[in-house]
Amino acid sequence: MNDTTPSPAPREGRKKPPYIYETRMEVRDYECDIQGIVNNANYLHYIEHTRHLFLLSTGLSFSKLHEQGVDAVVARMNLQYKTPLRCDDEFISRLGLKKEGLRYVFNQDIYRAGDERLCFKSTVELVCLINGKLGNSDDYDRAFAPYLK
Amino acid sequence: MNDTTPSPAPREGRKKPPYIYETRMEVRDYECDIQGIVNNANYLHYIEHTRHLFLLSTGLSFSKLHEQGVDAVVARMNLQYKTPLRCDDEFISRLGLKKEGLRYVFNQDIYRAGDERLCFKSTVELVCLINGKLGNSDDYDRAFAPYLK
Amino acid sequence: MNDTTPSPAPREGRKKPPYIYETRMEVRDYECDIQGIVNNANYLHYIEHTRHLFLLSTGLSFSKLHEQGVDAVVARMNLQYKTPLRCDDEFISRLGLKKEGLRYVFNQDIYRAGDERLCFKSTVELVCLINGKLGNSDDYDRAFAPYLK
Amino acid sequence: MNDTTPSPAPREGRKKPPYIYETRMEVRDYECDIQGIVNNANYLHYIEHTRHLFLLSTGLSFSKLHEQGVDAVVARMNLQYKTPLRCDDEFISRLGLKKEGLRYVFNQDIYRAGDERLCFKSTVELVCLINGKLGNSDDYDRAFAPYLK
Repeated sequence: MNDTTPSPAPREGRKKPPYIYETRMEVRDYECDIQGIVNNANYLHYIEHTRHLFLLSTGLSFSKLHEQGVDAVVARMNLQYKTPLRCDDEFISRLGLKKEGLRYVFNQDIYRAGDERLCFKSTVELVCLINGKLGNSDDYDRAFAPYLK
Repeated sequence: MNDTTPSPAPREGRKKPPYIYETRMEVRDYECDIQGIVNNANYLHYIEHTRHLFLLSTGLSFSKLHEQGVDAVVARMNLQYKTPLRCDDEFISRLGLKKEGLRYVFNQDIYRAGDERLCFKSTVELVCLINGKLGNSDDYDRAFAPYLK
Repeated sequence: MNDTTPSPAPREGRKKPPYIYETRMEVRDYECDIQGIVNNANYLHYIEHTRHLFLLSTGLSFSKLHEQGVDAVVARMNLQYKTPLRCDDEFISRLGLKKEGLRYVFNQDIYRAGDERLCFKSTVELVCLINGKLGNSDDYDRAFAPYLK
Repeated sequence: MNDTTPSPAPREGRKKPPYIYETRMEVRDYECDIQGIVNNANYLHYIEHTRHLFLLSTGLSFSKLHEQGVDAVVARMNLQYKTPLRCDDEFISRLGLKKEGLRYVFNQDIYRAGDERLCFKSTVELVCLINGKLGNSDDYDRAFAPYLK
């Protein structure tokens, strides 16, 4: 049922822009809609969870930072849906990062495990709110420093 | 596609136990899964939202109470799935209430609009946490007093 | 807690680009995360539901079309998060539409009810799959004709 | 923040009734609500996903069975919320199974990883619909036979 046309482009895409983190996940059936494909909103869940896991890997917790008054919130997203994920699919969620002014800009792409086909491509811009006001977070900067040369 | 067998029982169920609040809602397509029916977890969303609307109708806000350290949390639920809701369905969510010790016990039933067929039947027991500790909330008691004779 | 700064810009935004459909909805508490604001993925639910209601208003059902082998799927989205919606907020979801080649391009914006503040701004590009193959749907074209001059 | 009181009871619970399958999962931040705890509906997602993984482990796919006209649907659930899961928590979802008449009765419990504290306890009754009619599924019976002596 999944389409199996060879897809050279994804392989290319997988190499650039450089990814700094990846995690493997599986589609949960309740995430699929009547079309039998993952509902488009769930991709935002997948990439949010990936960002939080990446953050944990640097030693920071999104929820603990929230308790300290530091919130990273999404300002903009740019999404491309390429090949739909389906029930029982496994996938790899990959992430790259740069900083532009106050904004952290993540490129977050999702590949189907097995054939490495590109399913979803996105750019996500986050800004920090410190006690509710737009600002720069030293915590985030320190955590991300090794990846922002 | 919806089944249209006459259903005398629901009509009975609609009368007792007495309901004190109801609200009309519509199925959103993303709530349906590959079976074309509302995923079972979404019924908990429907009845939670109904409780919060009922609370708002008494002048209290669940989220504002949370900010004051008062949280009503679900301790137990008993759920019966009778007739599945489907895409494009509208439904009526009805609620009754009694108090047993520290627990607020809601009976919450969902009927398909149009034919009043019983879709979902539940009992939901909530307890209050005051600053994280099991307790009795005067706010909730006052709000619910007219319904708890 | 909601910010109440006057916001002249949204009023402007409300006028152009022209909207052809709107619906009023309310935030459900479970859609808010630990930050007390609506999680970013839920905006995709809001605008999807708005598109499906708009479609119903033209006499077509997204789910019935699916049964006939006609699926409109999201190809691209461009999202801007302006002012977060919070628990107990009501909002108005507005929609405009144009066609570019095979693509239906919706502009979908969300305004907080009461002060008409712009919360969310998006462009959503859909393509039609006819029995799984990219194509042009006469059903959709007919339904949208009055809005595509 | 998590409560850390010793909890001998869960350990007992873990032994009986006998579990036949378990899987490890992690809380995703978007599953937590303003109370900072996992929203009660998400536990139904956790246990549904666990049942589907268990099914996959027997060689059957819930979604593939659906395409063949065989649907297992939830008829009843009995839920007890014991200790709330929070952001960053990992947990183990365990499952036992028996058959009563046409019904498959799963006992599905969730334990916090690390301290094995019982978080959630449930009984879930499923029935099979064969092309929309209540029936007995040979596929399910064969898959579950090793566990139903």
